[in-house]
Formats: sequence, structure tokens, C-alpha cells
Amino acid sequence: MRYLTAGESHGPQLTTILEGVPAGLPLTVEDINDDLARRQKGHGRGRRMQIEKDTVDILSGVRHGQTLGSPITLAVTNDDWKHWTKIMGIEPLSQEDQEEVKRKVTKPRPGHADLNGAIKYGHRDMRNVLERSSARETTVRVAAGAVARKFLAELGIKVAGHVTEIGGVKAEPQSISNLDDLKAQTEASPVRCYDKKVEQQMMDAIDTAKENGDSIGGIVEVIVEGVPAGVGSYVHYDRKLDAKVAASIMSINAFKGVEFGVGFQAASLPGSKVHDEIAWSEERGYYRLSNNLGGFEGGMTTGMPIVVRGVMKPIPTLYKPLQSVDIDTKEPFQASIERSDSCAVPAASVVAEAVVAWEIAQAIVEQFGQDRMDLIKENVQRMREHAAKF
Amino acid sequence: MRYLTAGESHGPQLTTILEGVPAGLPLTVEDINDDLARRQKGHGRGRRMQIEKDTVDILSGVRHGQTLGSPITLAVTNDDWKHWTKIMGIEPLSQEDQEEVKRKVTKPRPGHADLNGAIKYGHRDMRNVLERSSARETTVRVAAGAVARKFLAELGIKVAGHVTEIGGVKAEPQSISNLDDLKAQTEASPVRCYDKKVEQQMMDAIDTAKENGDSIGGIVEVIVEGVPAGVGSYVHYDRKLDAKVAASIMSINAFKGVEFGVGFQAASLPGSKVHDEIAWSEERGYYRLSNNLGGFEGGMTTGMPIVVRGVMKPIPTLYKPLQSVDIDTKEPFQASIERSDSCAVPAASVVAEAVVAWEIAQAIVEQFGQDRMDLIKENVQRMREHAAKF
Amino acid sequence: MRYLTAGESHGPQLTTILEGVPAGLPLTVEDINDDLARRQKGHGRGRRMQIEKDTVDILSGVRHGQTLGSPITLAVTNDDWKHWTKIMGIEPLSQEDQEEVKRKVTKPRPGHADLNGAIKYGHRDMRNVLERSSARETTVRVAAGAVARKFLAELGIKVAGHVTEIGGVKAEPQSISNLDDLKAQTEASPVRCYDKKVEQQMMDAIDTAKENGDSIGGIVEVIVEGVPAGVGSYVHYDRKLDAKVAASIMSINAFKGVEFGVGFQAASLPGSKVHDEIAWSEERGYYRLSNNLGGFEGGMTTGMPIVVRGVMKPIPTLYKPLQSVDIDTKEPFQASIERSDSCAVPAASVVAEAVVAWEIAQAIVEQFGQDRMDLIKENVQRMREHAAKF
Amino acid sequence: MRYLTAGESHGPQLTTILEGVPAGLPLTVEDINDDLARRQKGHGRGRRMQIEKDTVDILSGVRHGQTLGSPITLAVTNDDWKHWTKIMGIEPLSQEDQEEVKRKVTKPRPGHADLNGAIKYGHRDMRNVLERSSARETTVRVAAGAVARKFLAELGIKVAGHVTEIGGVKAEPQSISNLDDLKAQTEASPVRCYDKKVEQQMMDAIDTAKENGDSIGGIVEVIVEGVPAGVGSYVHYDRKLDAKVAASIMSINAFKGVEFGVGFQAASLPGSKVHDEIAWSEERGYYRLSNNLGGFEGGMTTGMPIVVRGVMKPIPTLYKPLQSVDIDTKEPFQASIERSDSCAVPAASVVAEAVVAWEIAQAIVEQFGQDRMDLIKENVQRMREHAAKF
Repeated sequence: MRYLTAGESHGPQLTTILEGVPAGLPLTVEDINDDLARRQKGHGRGRRMQIEKDTVDILSGVRHGQTLGSPITLAVTNDDWKHWTKIMGIEPLSQEDQEEVKRKVTKPRPGHADLNGAIKYGHRDMRNVLERSSARETTVRVAAGAVARKFLAELGIKVAGHVTEIGGVKAEPQSISNLDDLKAQTEASPVRCYDKKVEQQMMDAIDTAKENGDSIGGIVEVIVEGVPAGVGSYVHYDRKLDAKVAASIMSINAFKGVEFGVGFQAASLPGSKVHDEIAWSEERGYYRLSNNLGGFEGGMTTGMPIVVRGVMKPIPTLYKPLQSVDIDTKEPFQASIERSDSCAVPAASVVAEAVVAWEIAQAIVEQFGQDRMDLIKENVQRMREHAAKF
Repeated sequence: MRYLTAGESHGPQLTTILEGVPAGLPLTVEDINDDLARRQKGHGRGRRMQIEKDTVDILSGVRHGQTLGSPITLAVTNDDWKHWTKIMGIEPLSQEDQEEVKRKVTKPRPGHADLNGAIKYGHRDMRNVLERSSARETTVRVAAGAVARKFLAELGIKVAGHVTEIGGVKAEPQSISNLDDLKAQTEASPVRCYDKKVEQQMMDAIDTAKENGDSIGGIVEVIVEGVPAGVGSYVHYDRKLDAKVAASIMSINAFKGVEFGVGFQAASLPGSKVHDEIAWSEERGYYRLSNNLGGFEGGMTTGMPIVVRGVMKPIPTLYKPLQSVDIDTKEPFQASIERSDSCAVPAASVVAEAVVAWEIAQAIVEQFGQDRMDLIKENVQRMREHAAKF
Repeated sequence: MRYLTAGESHGPQLTTILEGVPAGLPLTVEDINDDLARRQKGHGRGRRMQIEKDTVDILSGVRHGQTLGSPITLAVTNDDWKHWTKIMGIEPLSQEDQEEVKRKVTKPRPGHADLNGAIKYGHRDMRNVLERSSARETTVRVAAGAVARKFLAELGIKVAGHVTEIGGVKAEPQSISNLDDLKAQTEASPVRCYDKKVEQQMMDAIDTAKENGDSIGGIVEVIVEGVPAGVGSYVHYDRKLDAKVAASIMSINAFKGVEFGVGFQAASLPGSKVHDEIAWSEERGYYRLSNNLGGFEGGMTTGMPIVVRGVMKPIPTLYKPLQSVDIDTKEPFQASIERSDSCAVPAASVVAEAVVAWEIAQAIVEQFGQDRMDLIKENVQRMREHAAKF
Repeated sequence: MRYLTAGESHGPQLTTILEGVPAGLPLTVEDINDDLARRQKGHGRGRRMQIEKDTVDILSGVRHGQTLGSPITLAVTNDDWKHWTKIMGIEPLSQEDQEEVKRKVTKPRPGHADLNGAIKYGHRDMRNVLERSSARETTVRVAAGAVARKFLAELGIKVAGHVTEIGGVKAEPQSISNLDDLKAQTEASPVRCYDKKVEQQMMDAIDTAKENGDSIGGIVEVIVEGVPAGVGSYVHYDRKLDAKVAASIMSINAFKGVEFGVGFQAASLPGSKVHDEIAWSEERGYYRLSNNLGGFEGGMTTGMPIVVRGVMKPIPTLYKPLQSVDIDTKEPFQASIERSDSCAVPAASVVAEAVVAWEIAQAIVEQFGQDRMDLIKENVQRMREHAAKF
């Protein structure tokens, strides 16, 4: 399983092609639209979220509600495109139009790809960078992840993303016993947080940041339940599944760190408090007395829930000015903008969920078969029985 | 550039083949042996480090001290192999030898790949897992990294790994002005830490853990200086260089988290304190007034030093017993061992340095040419000039 | 550079995403539509070619007539889709519609992917296979190739595909001195053949096959002029460029063989008549006195024109019945159809041109830089000068 | 499954690392040495074949005669190395040694990688090219292939390579009914040809070429029996298994063409004579009444034997001089050598067998599971039953 995404933020559409999704997976636009809507919610989003109500078109690879095994094309139209046909037009501009319509961007925003991207690709108009480096691209990553989540659901594997910290306000750690309950709670929360006690504080932190013309980041956590032990591999470094999951989290716009289980706390705990003791019972087979390692040992799943967290930096587009330099004049200026989200962490938890779902699905397809849902189900079931009796 | 590693911990040798290293890079065994020796030092290492004095043989790809452009074979002999020729022998065992020599391992150690690996590959003798999942494999990853470091050095790019925390003892953050100085300081330290004030505390923490039959982990940091802006790319999620670096760190045995720049602190800081303001001067071209983002924006380098940290969990092989279950009898037992390292964080900083060096070198080869050192040098130089004048 | 294609033959559209095309390449829909039209011409095509007048929409990656460096989405609408919305619908069918609309295919056609594909993916309705395995997919491969050809043209590299044999009628071998002339001749020919003497015989062979309810295949040749020496590599088997080109030709529907230069004749010629002698002059640098090896030595280009041929089997959809077996009833039946092309070789030469262009462009991007057209041009020029003076 | 090879022709050794071979495959050095010996036989080989009696060392990934799932290192020592330690030494040369020992090569041989490789990598001494571009590298490709053949044998899949043409002398086509018989016949033949009637003519052709100071090429064929239907895929062009097999054949040194089944004859046959009609019986399930397509339809196996042929050009190292140019002086010279093979086609059939075996094994691992031989066997068996009953 692999996928490519394409599309500029104000271009006609975002597109993704998913290659390698097995045949026989039930799939409808609703499966995907639900996640697209979840991505657009959350306290702290700006006007764009009201403009776009994203829905997907499936343009290949699905027939009569079932995947065919052939590549799946997903497209999300940019409703805003109609106002941008000149500025973002595909065709060459006539001479007279040139200066008028281009809205050339020469002022790079700190924290964005603008300047580095312009240097790299030789763009004097940084719109050529920012249109693609925009987090708008995550829309189709969520669409791809929705397909992966559907695939996992068929195998009894659940994935849930939620928020554990915003702007320094932390949710109380609590053991998650049921992902469905967690999901019910977090989806009802404007900040996608299970901890009712801090929810309002998080919203206040967002509002305060907004009032200050500032922005805040936070931490999202993704939990995956039901993956059999032994997915991934220790035999070669680039086959470690936790490393792939880490890369997928780090590839989300604005993410600056990732950790599993106790994560960075492992630097201060003794080994006897970190490693998860092993037990066995007739009914459950092998299991662990704790899950400090977040479901991974040796680059493989342990059969315990996968617990991974990523940190998102504050949105770099601020009302509050940041110093920068115009690339044409080399004059310093104060970078600021007129409207923006002040916090996108709740949305980012949906994106994180999507990219983790994709990696896990991908690993399962590699290990348990790439062609047909029915065979994959059988093989995963056999693995569960094998592990239980091992 | 790509590489494969091979070798069991008590097999005859560890081997790596590096494919895609450009022609014309000066390279000798000393370049590599230095790093192998660095990996074996550090307060808290066990007996194995005394047994093995690792040195490399270059078996292909280098002639008269220069790389040829063809694949480079690096081999590190396991001196201990002579005692393991029966237990780890390649050839089938005779019937009578079978039970005697096998030293069958049926007791999985918590925190290791033992149990998951055995379930996955169907091994009833977990020696078949632990011989490969051992951190001994990092020896050749360090060898590969040494070649990458040599490559980078030719381009004026420096890489340094060091320790910032061990068992809860943290080095005081300080701005690094000179990587050579940093290296001189940290290489002189038994815990590879620049902060003299905490060095002894770190050693004490290690000794205490050892006395308690326990182990401790820590945090390592890698800094890369001199990479031009615009390496990596924002155009597709799997081309983001920070994501690749994160995966490489996470693929090191026992690592549970990774972060860039301010990392997880970004969850509590306002945007105005996170994003690095942009300045420009005739002499320096573009530069940043801070480096909170650790040298990356939009999956690309900014031209500022890359700063990445990884957290290593405590070594899971403890004197202090952890509960586990024998896979043959299903009886619980207390997992403990008689000798081991109690802390491998100083060594891990060398491994981290190696894997980061590889990723950066790989990205540079992709962008600036894959064939010849002289052309790559020219192209990198052109990029620096282009960026300065952009 | 990489690309994914998607789309069923009677689905809403064909789509491809091209990732890794450098920034700064001039590109318009006309550049692509020209090749799409060329693919639809040729004596012997059936009714479908009249139904579809393929044109492309560029949906990302291009702005104001220039590539941005970001992924390029190309879409070709299937005009026929409006008649297939039920049969090929994305959404699940209502119970009553189910049997009516499905047009279930249970009769596999020899020579097609029908039976193997159905076995592999578990499809009882082989429409689920044939919709994707159809040569309709080559439409977007041609679109991708058109972008590659534009890229190559900017570097002074020309690519031309033409027909050298149809149904046993062979064009007289002749040395090609000028690709523009060749192209002018072959584009004017209904069978895309430069040899006026056999053109009519080829058309007659096609007509005769059609009258007999049969079909015929043929041989296409692609020539690439202007590639510098030393593209590709001998250092590792999977980096040999001729092997990649061979795979691309073999991946075209219905192709059964591929050869370079003298190709299979090399089995009967002595070495002294095969190897291309080397000469040098002040003006030209190194050159060859012949081009029997078709522009490749050691998996690398020699600087001489690349000459590669592929053989296409006859179209397997015949009026003349072939024996097969219904997969539901296991009854034998006579497979035949009512309309089809009787020869698609002229069209296949355009597809071959496209896939070869892509491979060459890909290799050049790998070697000479992936980011910007202006730098790639400079680097290719430097290589030409270096080779001339070497 | 993937592998890297390394090693220069006169360096200390050739090495390959095989990553991804499943656990539980019985494997000994004999399995590999047999094929290494087969590669060194054949009428027409030169002195080098007498110097080297290749045998392999397994240095990782195998324990007590069984694969572990971890990377397998195979090494073949170059016995000749002891005479080349200075010329091919790894370490830098002292100033005085420099001119003496280098045996600098400035005269490129037509038909070799010498000139293009030197231009590409900037080598003024073409020994830096020819040491790696040498067909000596195929030794470890044969070793890798031997492991793949062992893997396939466990699944009841047989692979045999043999010679069908040498220097214009063609074996009479005959239908192969039993691969074991074919192998017995061809292994007993000095030219690895089943057709006793032409065997002597082939040897005579080789001897005549040798007397003339010339060389000849030929055609090799590889047959694979027992692969289930539906391996490979039509869903995306780069997943077509015949295309991958074609690339592997083309990546063998000196190969200039590849074809499946009737191959290039398909250009002159009508469709009704090319496509393989489909039949079904209770005992056999689906089968074909012919095998003109060489076991592939739509990039997938049909369940019929895979039949692939490749053409090898004559060895380019001739006694008979070919014109070339010294790269230092730019003076023309007559390239000739003092000893060489005059025909390597019988050996090449073993290499072809090896590379095809690898590709098929790789495809099976992808489709049927990557971890354990026992599960892969079960899955392949299930597929055979599924296909029979489909």
C-alpha cells in the first residue's frame, strides 16, 4: 500500500491515489466524509473551515460499494477555487494580466516553508511554495487514513486520536479501557479532549491566544487497539514499525516531536519501572502487566494497545508580528496576517489518527496478504490464535 | 544511498553493504575505527565492551584510499565467535549434539524483542531472535555513519552527538557556538556530556542503578552544522527530511521518542516564542534570530543547525528480576541476568550521530548529485551562494 | 520522479499523479493533448477511438504555464461514463437493481487478465478485472510521458516512437539521421511507419486480419537522441538504465519482448561485428563508429542514440472464437466479441515512446538534480562539456 | 526480499546481503556451491574459471541449517586476490609506490562499461570501473538465486535454465514435459543444451570463434514450473511480474533482449494462433491448451510454466582488435587482449536462472507472506486449491 497526494491550497482540487488497497473492502463516500468533517471541527479554527465543507468523490477503484483491488482515486474539490482561477490559473498569463493577477508573495513568514522552499525551487513568488506547503494537504491524508481505518475496522482493529495538551493545559493521564467510550467523549468535546475538567481551560487558552494575536500548539495522542503481536520486524532497522509510525507523525505539518508509551519520561525512570512484565493465561494467552512501552518492543507490536503522541507547534501565522525580510527588497518587515486559526490541535489529532492508521494497515497488508479482505481476515485470525497458543 | 546490515550478536561477523556512496571520497579504516571505539566507551558499560575491540575491514568499494562509486562492504569480526561456533553454527547439528549445544532460550525478557519475535517467526528457541535484535547490530550502523560523516566533512558539514540527560539528571541547556569545542568537551567526558557540573551526578546515577540491580536511560542530542537551506522537501509528505531523521532515531534499539528544537515544549509556548524570526545581511544572507525549530521548517533545512534529540529507555536486561513466562511450560519466572551494562546512553549518542549523519548525507546526494565528490562539492557550494544572494 | 495511475475503462475518469517533476518546466494542456491524440490514431482502431476524444485537465502542480515542483495531477474524463453510471457505479446497489445492472462477466477471454485476475482477487464478476486491466489505462501513461518528453525537450533530448513491423510485414531497416524528419514521416503515416514501400502492405495486413475476424501484432521502436554518456550505472544491477527501460516496455499491455540495438541478432553475430568501436575528435569528443548496442553499455548510456524495440502481441479480443470456460457453469464456450480494434500497434508506439521518455527523464533527474529546470539544464550542459573534454 | 551485492573482480571477496528471506528455510553451503560450480562450467570459458573454484561462506542469517528470518550474508573469496593486494589495495599508496603499482588503465574497451563509467564517475584510471562492471559480480547473484531456488523448491516450484542458441546455431524447439529430465540432459551437456543434434555444432562454433580471435553470444531460456496462477498483478504497471523478470534478465551483464513465450514471433502471428485457449477439468481445474504467452497474461502468472528467453551479446574482450582511443593521449589504438572466454552463454544460463528465481520468490513472498516457510507453504497450497475450485 502506497499513496501520493496532490493539490494546491487554492487550486481546483486535492487528489490522492491509493495503490494496493486489497479487493473486497466495503467502502462508501460516507466512510471518508465523516473523517473529513471531524478534521474541520474544533475550537480555534478560522474562517477557512467555514468556507470549505469538504466532501470526497471516489473516482476509481470502488464499484458498487466494494474496493476492486485497483488504485483508488479520491478527490476533494476546493470550493474557494472559483475566486482564484486567475491567481492560481494553470494556463500561461497574457502579458497584460501578468502583474495584475499574480499577487506575488515576496515576504516569507517565519515558521513556514516559504523561504526555504523558495530558495530550493528558485521561486521568486513564494505563493508557489505556500500553496502546496499549506496544511490544506492534510485533507486528503485524512481521506487516505479513513480508508485505512475502514480496512482496520474489518479486522477488529480500532484507532482513536485525541488531544492531551493545549497551550500548556494538560489532561490528567488516565488509563483508557474502551476506545469506543473514549471516542464518544472526545468527539463531543470542542477540543477533542476526554478530560472534562480541563476542557474549558483549553478553550480559554485558545481564546486568550487569539486575543493576544498569538497562537498555541499542543499534544495529540493516537491509540490503536487490536493489532496482533509481531507486526513490524526487528530484523532490519528500516522495517521497525514504530520508526515508520514516528516518521508518519513527523510528516504532519507543524509537528516537532513524537513519543511512544512513557516516551521522554523513560529518561528519568529506572528500568524496573519501564519494562512491561509478561503474563500468560489460558484465556488471554500472553499479555503485559503494564503498557509503558506503548505497544512496541523491538520495532514490533506486543499485542498491547499502540500509544503514540505527537507535539504540534503553534500555528505560525500570527496577528502578532514576527520579524522577517522581503526577498526582493531585502527590507525587514513585520510579518502578520489578518485572519487565521489560533489553534489547530483538535484537527491535528484527526490527521494523526489518519497517518497512524495508514501505517498500521500498510504493515498488516505486507505481513498478512495484499490481495483480498477475506484472506487477510483469515490470516490475521490465524495469527491471533497462533499467538494465543504459542 | 542505501545500506543493508547483517549479522548475529554471536555469529562470525557483522557486515554492511553501502550502495550509492559517490566516487572520490577519501576513506580509510581509521575513519571508521575511531567511531567504533567511541561507541564502546562510556561509564556504565558491561563486560562485552572489554571483550570486543571492534575494528573494521573494508572489503570492497575503496581503492588506494578513495571510494570508487561501487558498493562498499564493511565487516566487523566478532572476537567472541570462537566460543560460539557450536551454539551459533551455520551447519545442521548432528542428532547427538542437538540438545547439548543448543542452549535453547524459552524465557522471554520483558522489554526485548524475544517474545514478539518468536511469535512472529515461529521460533521456539528465542536465541534465534535475540541474536539479531541485539544492539550489537548498531556497530555496523556506526560504521555506515562514519562513512556518511566523512562525506559530510568534505562538504564542510559537521555532526556531533552528545548526552543531555541520564536517569533524570539533566545537563543545563546552553547554546552551542562551536561544534569542535563541544566535541572536545564531550569526548573527554565519561558520560559524553558537556556540562561538567552534572557529569559526576550522571555517573553516580549510573552506579546507583547498578548497585540496585537496575538500569537507567537518558536523552541524546545530535547537532548538524553547515547544511545549506532547502535540503528535504515540503512537496510530498514522505520527502520531509525531519520525518526521515525521526525514523532513523526511532529505529535505534531502545529509543522511544524523538524531537527537534524546542520539541515537546512547543505544546506550552505561544507561537510568538517558537517561530524563528528571519533576518538578512550582506555577509550572511538570510539567517534566523533563534533556532527553536531545530533547523527545520516545512520538512526542509533552514540553514540553521539541525538539533534533534532522542530518548533511550533503560536497558531491559536487569539484575533485578522482572516477571515473565516460560513459553514451553507457561510457568511464570523471574527474569534476571548476571551481567550487563547498566547504562548505554553515552554509546547511544554515537549511534544517533551515525544514523543522523547517514540521513543528511543521503538527502544531499539526492539533491546535489550521486556520482562524484568534486561535483557534489561544487553543487553544494553553488547552492550556498545562491541562497546567500537569493 | 514517480507516478501512480488510476481509473477503470468505463469509470468516470483516468487520473495520474506525477511526483517529483522539477519546478520551472513550461507545461500546458496542449503539450499533453497532442500525444493523447496521437495515441488515438492509426489504421485498425475500433469504435472506441471515435467515442473518446481524450483531453487532459491539469489539476495541480502547474501555475501560469510552469511546473511548481509539487505533484502534478492529470485527469482524462471518460466520455462514455454517462452510459455506465449504474453498471460501474461507486455506491452500493439497491437489492432490486442488483441483478439487472451488474452485467456480470463470467466468461474469461484468453489472452486477457480476466481469469488470473479473478482468481487472484476473488472476483466472481470478471468485469472487476477487465475494467482495470484494459489498455485504456495507457492513456494516462501517455499523459505522464508527454510531461517527460517536454522535460527532455528542454534539455535538447528528443524521443520518437514508430512502427517497424506489423503482422509480419517489416519495414526496411534504415539508419535514422534526423529524428525530426522521422517524426514528420511517421506521423503522416496511418501505420506510423517511415517506410512508404511497406505502409500499404501493413494496412492490407490489418484489413485482412479484420476480415478474418482475427487480429495482428507488431514491433515498435523508440529512439532517444541527445542523452549524455554515463546516465544509468553499472555499480549495482538494479541501477542499470537499460533494465529499467526494458521493464517499462514490458509493462505496456500486450508486450511480450524487448531488445536494444541489434537485440536478438546478437546471438548469431561475432563479437567483432557487435561491439561499437570508439573514436574521438576535437569537435565531437568521443563517439562510436556504429550503434549496434543501441546506446547502452554496462547499463549506462554511451551518448549514441538509444534504440529500443518492443513486440506487441495481437489484440486478444477477436471476432474469431477462442475456446474458454464459463467460471460459473464450467461449460466451455467460444469467446468472441462484436467490435474491437484489429491492430493497435501504431498506438502502442506512442505508449512506448511515453514510457521510455519517463524512464530517461527519471534517470536524468536522479543524476542531475531534482529541483529546478535551470540547474538541471546547467548540470546536463556541464556533463556534455566534461564528456567532450574527458 | 531485497539484496545488495558488492565486490570488485580482483578485490578480496564478493559479498551479498539478502534481506527478507523467511525464517525456517533449510539452507546449507552445498545448496549454493552447487550453483556456483554450475556457473563456472561450459565449453568456451577461459583461464579465470580454472583459477577460481568458487565456494560460499554463510556469515549470518542461518543457524543449524535453517534460516532465521534475519539478513543472510554470503561471501565468496577471490583466490586471486593475493596477487592483487597492491594494485587493488584499500589503503592509500605511498608516494613511491604510486606509479609502480597502479597499473592504470587508460584504454577503454568497446562493448564494456569502461569509457562511460569513467566519464560518469570521473575516473582517469578505468580499472576503477572495470573491476566492478566485470561479470565476476554475477557470482553472488547466482548465490542469491540459489537461496531463492531453495525457497521455491520447498513450495514445489522448479526453475531450470538452459541454452537454445549459440553463435547462430539453434536448438530445435521442443516441448518440455519434465523439468527434471531437462535439467539432467542440459547439465550433462558442455553447452547446457538439450538438443544433442546441435551440441557439437555449438562447440565448434565456439572453437572457431576462438581460433578467429573472436567471440560469440547466444540465447538462454529459463523455465519455471509450479507457480500458482495470479502471482504478479495487472492493477498497476510497476507490479507486473513479467516486467520485473524482464528487468532482471536485462540487468545481467551483456544481455540485450528478453522475450516471453513466442516473444518476437508474436509480430507475425495472427491473434488466433497466439492466445492460449482456456480449458477446465475436475482434476486439473483451469488450464491452457497451449503456452504461447510463456506463462503470463496481464502481468500475472497463468499457472502454466513461465518461459523466458534472453539474448547475450558476444563477450566484448576479443583477441581480434577493435578500434578505440586512449583517454590520456587521445591516440587511437587497437583494443585486444591476451586471454579471455570466447563464449559465456552456458554460464549465463545459470545466472539467468538465478535472477528469475529471485524475482519469482520475491513475488511469492509479497503475496503469500514474508515471515515463515510453514505459513507460506500453507498459503500457496490454499491458493492452489482455491484456483482449482474457482
